[in-house]
Amino acid sequence: MRIGILGTGTLAVALATGWARTGHDIVIGGRSFERAEAAAKASGVRARPLCEVAEHAAAVLLSVRWEGVADILQAVGAPAGALAGKPLIDPTNAVDHGIGVLRTESGRAAAHRVAELAPGAHVVKAFHLFPSTHWSSLSSPAAVVAMCGDDRRALEVVGALVRDIGGVPAVIGGLDRARQLEEVAGFVIALAFAGIDPRSAVPAVPSPESNGGAPQS
Amino acid sequence: MRIGILGTGTLAVALATGWARTGHDIVIGGRSFERAEAAAKASGVRARPLCEVAEHAAAVLLSVRWEGVADILQAVGAPAGALAGKPLIDPTNAVDHGIGVLRTESGRAAAHRVAELAPGAHVVKAFHLFPSTHWSSLSSPAAVVAMCGDDRRALEVVGALVRDIGGVPAVIGGLDRARQLEEVAGFVIALAFAGIDPRSAVPAVPSPESNGGAPQS
Repeated sequence: MRIGILGTGTLAVALATGWARTGHDIVIGGRSFERAEAAAKASGVRARPLCEVAEHAAAVLLSVRWEGVADILQAVGAPAGALAGKPLIDPTNAVDHGIGVLRTESGRAAAHRVAELAPGAHVVKAFHLFPSTHWSSLSSPAAVVAMCGDDRRALEVVGALVRDIGGVPAVIGGLDRARQLEEVAGFVIALAFAGIDPRSAVPAVPSPESNGGAPQS
Repeated sequence: MRIGILGTGTLAVALATGWARTGHDIVIGGRSFERAEAAAKASGVRARPLCEVAEHAAAVLLSVRWEGVADILQAVGAPAGALAGKPLIDPTNAVDHGIGVLRTESGRAAAHRVAELAPGAHVVKAFHLFPSTHWSSLSSPAAVVAMCGDDRRALEVVGALVRDIGGVPAVIGGLDRARQLEEVAGFVIALAFAGIDPRSAVPAVPSPESNGGAPQS
């Protein structure tokens, strides 16, 4: 499958490398073509001018810092519908660095803003909880990738991409659950930067058949 | 320390039992005095009429289902200030059972509602993420109890109570972080009821000294 990656950072490189390894055709673009070329070289894939990244892509990964989301979506023509009909993976964390407070207004998700900026795109929140180092290490244990979105076909496409990179997809609902997933990232960030393993702050469910691990509701 | 427990369910019994074991003086009250007596007997502590539970307590645990929060706070005179100045531990999850969607309105936390219903009380969100079975099993590994609140002294009191029950307290901020903690509970509930171990869906931080486990912000 052809995957267009918007962004040139460590998550872009980690996922591009892993997806290329399983046979996907990856193109990377960024605001700086030099950085896109460097990221493509590091991943063993191709760089393309930003305006061409989405063109033939069957799925698009929006792998930029939150501050750059509006700019890069503008640059690829997303507001004019350039990503319409495509799965658009949103791994962004609109979070104050090291504190874990979300920057988006109360009740709103970063993913909602992404959806507004890319009308018609099938936004899927995913890949926002684990650090890029998780995906670049071949020895990482399988991670469950919690994700949400409104388009079933897009969720299937992204679910397959999660498996291709060694993860286990877990759809927790529609895009209305994105705020919850983003708050979890804020929680993870707050604990990690305080030197606390986030895993020690959530319960383990002893058996996949048991509901005994759930807190009372 | 004298601790008043409002509620007679499994979490009330688990925490009462553990706290009594470390020498605290526990009284339990509920809407039904018979159930309070049964819970007290199961915990090895004393039952008291609801109106007396908070009276001499140095801290109060609000251990009822979300639907019963307003009623029980009313019954102890919290709206009239009966809990003013006391640490009030809020472990409630205002969450649709098995789905993990929060019932409180967008951007609002259950803990904010508790604070409104108990003017002057020092509300501390805590003990809402791990199931009661965690605290009733002597063989449970140490859990980090993420908590938040606005009163430093109340956070210290609750932190000590977390340690007394075998947990590790982690204050992530003021009561304005309660919504985030409650969303994490929704996430945990959604995964657990789907048969997925919530721990596999959050990253492990390899070293307490490292920030390498945090996702990009």
